[in-house]
Amino acid sequence: MQKIPVGVLGATGMVGQQYIALLANHPWFEVQYVAASPRNAGKSYQEAMAGRWQLATTWGPGVGELILQDANAVASALSAAQQGRLGFVFSALEMGKEEILCLESAYAAGGIPVISNASANRWTADVPMLIAEVNPHHAAIIPIQQKARGWKGFIVVKPNCSIQSYMTPLYALLNRGYQVRRAFVTTLQAVSGAGYPGVPSLDIIDNVVPYIGGEEEKSELEPLKILGEIRNGQIEPASAPKISAHCNRVPVVNGHTACVSLEFGDKKPSIAEVKTLWAGFTGLPQELDLPMAPKHPILLREEANRPQPRKDRDADKAMAVTVGRIRPCPIFDLRFVGLSHNTIRGAAGGGVLNAELLKVQGYLG
Amino acid sequence: MQKIPVGVLGATGMVGQQYIALLANHPWFEVQYVAASPRNAGKSYQEAMAGRWQLATTWGPGVGELILQDANAVASALSAAQQGRLGFVFSALEMGKEEILCLESAYAAGGIPVISNASANRWTADVPMLIAEVNPHHAAIIPIQQKARGWKGFIVVKPNCSIQSYMTPLYALLNRGYQVRRAFVTTLQAVSGAGYPGVPSLDIIDNVVPYIGGEEEKSELEPLKILGEIRNGQIEPASAPKISAHCNRVPVVNGHTACVSLEFGDKKPSIAEVKTLWAGFTGLPQELDLPMAPKHPILLREEANRPQPRKDRDADKAMAVTVGRIRPCPIFDLRFVGLSHNTIRGAAGGGVLNAELLKVQGYLG
Amino acid sequence: MQKIPVGVLGATGMVGQQYIALLANHPWFEVQYVAASPRNAGKSYQEAMAGRWQLATTWGPGVGELILQDANAVASALSAAQQGRLGFVFSALEMGKEEILCLESAYAAGGIPVISNASANRWTADVPMLIAEVNPHHAAIIPIQQKARGWKGFIVVKPNCSIQSYMTPLYALLNRGYQVRRAFVTTLQAVSGAGYPGVPSLDIIDNVVPYIGGEEEKSELEPLKILGEIRNGQIEPASAPKISAHCNRVPVVNGHTACVSLEFGDKKPSIAEVKTLWAGFTGLPQELDLPMAPKHPILLREEANRPQPRKDRDADKAMAVTVGRIRPCPIFDLRFVGLSHNTIRGAAGGGVLNAELLKVQGYLG
Amino acid sequence: MQKIPVGVLGATGMVGQQYIALLANHPWFEVQYVAASPRNAGKSYQEAMAGRWQLATTWGPGVGELILQDANAVASALSAAQQGRLGFVFSALEMGKEEILCLESAYAAGGIPVISNASANRWTADVPMLIAEVNPHHAAIIPIQQKARGWKGFIVVKPNCSIQSYMTPLYALLNRGYQVRRAFVTTLQAVSGAGYPGVPSLDIIDNVVPYIGGEEEKSELEPLKILGEIRNGQIEPASAPKISAHCNRVPVVNGHTACVSLEFGDKKPSIAEVKTLWAGFTGLPQELDLPMAPKHPILLREEANRPQPRKDRDADKAMAVTVGRIRPCPIFDLRFVGLSHNTIRGAAGGGVLNAELLKVQGYLG
Repeated sequence: MQKIPVGVLGATGMVGQQYIALLANHPWFEVQYVAASPRNAGKSYQEAMAGRWQLATTWGPGVGELILQDANAVASALSAAQQGRLGFVFSALEMGKEEILCLESAYAAGGIPVISNASANRWTADVPMLIAEVNPHHAAIIPIQQKARGWKGFIVVKPNCSIQSYMTPLYALLNRGYQVRRAFVTTLQAVSGAGYPGVPSLDIIDNVVPYIGGEEEKSELEPLKILGEIRNGQIEPASAPKISAHCNRVPVVNGHTACVSLEFGDKKPSIAEVKTLWAGFTGLPQELDLPMAPKHPILLREEANRPQPRKDRDADKAMAVTVGRIRPCPIFDLRFVGLSHNTIRGAAGGGVLNAELLKVQGYLG
Repeated sequence: MQKIPVGVLGATGMVGQQYIALLANHPWFEVQYVAASPRNAGKSYQEAMAGRWQLATTWGPGVGELILQDANAVASALSAAQQGRLGFVFSALEMGKEEILCLESAYAAGGIPVISNASANRWTADVPMLIAEVNPHHAAIIPIQQKARGWKGFIVVKPNCSIQSYMTPLYALLNRGYQVRRAFVTTLQAVSGAGYPGVPSLDIIDNVVPYIGGEEEKSELEPLKILGEIRNGQIEPASAPKISAHCNRVPVVNGHTACVSLEFGDKKPSIAEVKTLWAGFTGLPQELDLPMAPKHPILLREEANRPQPRKDRDADKAMAVTVGRIRPCPIFDLRFVGLSHNTIRGAAGGGVLNAELLKVQGYLG
Repeated sequence: MQKIPVGVLGATGMVGQQYIALLANHPWFEVQYVAASPRNAGKSYQEAMAGRWQLATTWGPGVGELILQDANAVASALSAAQQGRLGFVFSALEMGKEEILCLESAYAAGGIPVISNASANRWTADVPMLIAEVNPHHAAIIPIQQKARGWKGFIVVKPNCSIQSYMTPLYALLNRGYQVRRAFVTTLQAVSGAGYPGVPSLDIIDNVVPYIGGEEEKSELEPLKILGEIRNGQIEPASAPKISAHCNRVPVVNGHTACVSLEFGDKKPSIAEVKTLWAGFTGLPQELDLPMAPKHPILLREEANRPQPRKDRDADKAMAVTVGRIRPCPIFDLRFVGLSHNTIRGAAGGGVLNAELLKVQGYLG
Repeated sequence: MQKIPVGVLGATGMVGQQYIALLANHPWFEVQYVAASPRNAGKSYQEAMAGRWQLATTWGPGVGELILQDANAVASALSAAQQGRLGFVFSALEMGKEEILCLESAYAAGGIPVISNASANRWTADVPMLIAEVNPHHAAIIPIQQKARGWKGFIVVKPNCSIQSYMTPLYALLNRGYQVRRAFVTTLQAVSGAGYPGVPSLDIIDNVVPYIGGEEEKSELEPLKILGEIRNGQIEPASAPKISAHCNRVPVVNGHTACVSLEFGDKKPSIAEVKTLWAGFTGLPQELDLPMAPKHPILLREEANRPQPRKDRDADKAMAVTVGRIRPCPIFDLRFVGLSHNTIRGAAGGGVLNAELLKVQGYLG
């Protein structure tokens, strides 16, 4: 099988680097196009990243030599696409919301599918916000989106990294008929979630910052769109669960931890049922055996003191959500701790998995 | 006024050191007696602490030369008391529960008041668990305790450090007639709470440990005793608020942070009323102008990203609870973040303040 | 005595904040003028610092209400000086070298003495680089500088924070006739040395960065100017000791540590002599009993594992250099570890001490 | 090829865990025997490690079910060896020196080769201290050791983790005829080097500890034995280079950094020659293509701010030494920064590589 040539927009940023690293040996996709801010355009990727590459792993063969394009120059991407050097792009753009809206639309209009990490299009009603194990059926809105917009390409997005540590566990319960009415969530989030340079060390060494701008709103609302239904050409958000989120930044490099209390509807699972259900949960990516899919999307740990970010974030290609401390809640019904790798499962890895899903579903040619 | 000679049991441990440091220039109390495990008995305090003193501040004049006694040798303390060298003791013992129960009783029976940081006696029904601003009236059980036990001394305790970041704010609301039915609390606790050597660095650098043995139970139940009433010679715990606590250890040296959501009874204060009420709250220690009392027991910060442990823990002699992010809760009524210094407000400083209160109330001769 | 009104240029930066905090209750000086970048000009200091104040301590009465001036608008400062609201300025400017050279000259030319933390003028031949305990006599170049430049004001600077942990110990040896021929120095520097936002947390959590731009050159050369002599209207640098410096950034908030090996000339002190000499060292600030002067400029710790930044940086108002591990070197003659607080002793505190010295010497009116 | 059954003594400790993890999929060796302190004997490995396993990776198939033996019960190992279940042991014992000397001798006497991480036998004159790329020829002392002791087994050791970041680079120079007369070394060492629980978090968060007991002596002397020659049945240490080491503990999980200055003899390489020589260096493990051997034992980075522990420690299976900042020294001839993974290259990985070497050399049957 010939690999699909892919591009990374925002290739020099934190998430962009993570995409480049994850795609280094991908069996289906190959990075052949990299774009970033005008400031870096014209440099080789290697040159631009000297002293700025943040990861322990490195890029695939040939990527260092790719010449960075200006991400604003959509024409350059279209020309690459026409020459068969670009099948679709991962967008890890770091710009203002309006700029991203315009730019992602321009790529999509021109015929280039955009698989985006940016938050700009998350609440666009005909743009699906995908977690491959949770709402793969939302991809069905793509042709509707294309038709309504007159686009040959399309845009799909993924949700915020902060919700990944509890969204799949929540869904696994709902999927078995256990309604979740309300959820209290407190997150302890890694600094890599803020990108680079991101959180100043003076703000976080020997410290906690109990505030991340906009994060609580995303943590409370995005699950509702993911659980929503396609109706009248739009994704209509679900009305439950109601979520209250406290979001904190802690001195951890990678891995978001979430302390969660759940209130069920009338049908309440036992602790043992929840454990069995989570440990056994699989979704479409597992069924399709997608390359980036974790074997177990939810990994159950029985030790009293797990999950922990440094020890569990890398589980199963850093794509598993690890859960532990499943126990009754004195106020609601159930408490647990969830953990996921924010720049892999919660960002680039989730994006790659979405692309794999869309490829198998036939949306990527 | 002549200073009262005081002793510190467990003087070499983390909290013991903090007592010694806080009492360095105390206007009413003077450390004249130090006791620890038999292993250190016979050494001068200075000698025993060489290379083990954890604090940036130091001990008062003469303390380095005091000879460490065996904390188990109650007779030695009684003899010091008879010679006028010991008025009461602060207990920062680190032993098994049974041993502490025995030992603290022996001191009290012999006529030496024990102001304890240990958890052993917290649920002894006739032992008051004091936060000086919240339940100073519980000291009234002391004569009942003495009579029932036939003791000349007595035991009072203070609650766990983990509840201090929300207990005083909760009380300030209750005190004004706002019933708090239920509270969700997630704590982000400093490593000093585990004593020394305590948390291994391999467990906490670039990591979070979402579990502290016994801490959630303490965080949920101790507030009920503090809010209880003396009845039939016992402190009968209150029945509300119902609390659900998630306790986490984070890479912070000092300062426990708590993310809290509150559900009120029928009478609900506005956000503005809560702010006014907390900022203006004072208790008996402020009225009495006790030396260790913070001017404002609750300090209100309006910045979006405060309180933070490194920046707020030392506020007002590290005795103030700093609160911030006061905002509505999508599920309950109100959310906020509270922070207090766990080894000062939450341990030794709280103990000293209790002693000052008991002194003024006439219980310490 | 009426306090001298002083200004802080760069008042919103890290070192600027430290100046503001240190001067909060100063017996001789009072902050009445604050200036920063044009962006903040016109705001009250309080308003500009909301959410940006980095320190646990706070500013003095009235400072929050001061209106920030544009630091480039020298005329505004001159006008304040004429109205008796500005005696001299502390410069904590963070700009390009050329801009600082121009700006500091403009203040000095206009009659406002500039006590600077910036590195721009450190190698200006007629500008003294002062450590108050080491080369207070270099202040004698001030009238020469004024005459040559036709200035009514003047400029003095202080050296880089990285040299403070070994410079005073070195000088104390030289001062007693022990020539130091060569010195190997490896520094472990705190993140606050890079200002705010400074070092990204992604670069330093669970990490060391073995490079700080320009720092090794400063660490090797600045001691030579400090040890130099005034000759022909210039400070002529000394030719020894030859220093080799390795500078590293470590995950420490405040406090620079230096591991040092010294080679003496023919006259070699014993370890015991070095200890005695360092423990007993005092300079002119101690003799004059200046408010900011530490009682012992060099503090000797005998424990095997000290000094340590978190435990020793705050010693004696954070103005003492703490030394320990004094032992023979297998290659050179002597090894030791030195430590000082980089933003206090090494920056704002050192600047305040210099100002106190200049005041007593009659240079500040 | 059938795998050699191997044992790990001290299998529950930090280095023991690392051995177990590294051997999980080893092509030649298979863990079939685990031993630890009597306290854990009788438990399955899995059971003993619940909540104590420190690593992100896990053990190989079947290891969790192995029953832990008492490491003191040599008879149990001998019996396993006779039954063909134990070919040799890795010793990661954590006991007193005398106990280890006795115990390792007992295993060796009984016919079980001991490949040890412990320091006890490092200065035993007929025990080789191997770095596989540096002194593989020292294995030739094994038959001499066996004959002199009347042992069927033997003991080999590896040096301390602190020297690994500079020892191979030093050797690569010596090997090309560049004498290194003297070396200044300052290490910044990770907390995992102290084992578990090891360094208390209270000692190292926001801190540096400029002292590690015994580490400077090891760092100065062990290189001399490694560079020594077999003479009269002993390894006679070399007399150069003379090393002066300052050893520091820093808040880093894994990876020791060393800042090094070298003085050459009369023949001095240029900076360019050193770079070429290091980048091209290979040893016997590379020639033999041993499974654990890094492709390049020395990895050269040209960026100004590398190597860094978090970004470089895992290079090439965490077995490469990464060097950078190669530049002239104002006092000696050359400066550089070296970095290696202390629990892999510097401990378990180095031990496995030694075993591979000994296997190929025919010492392990």
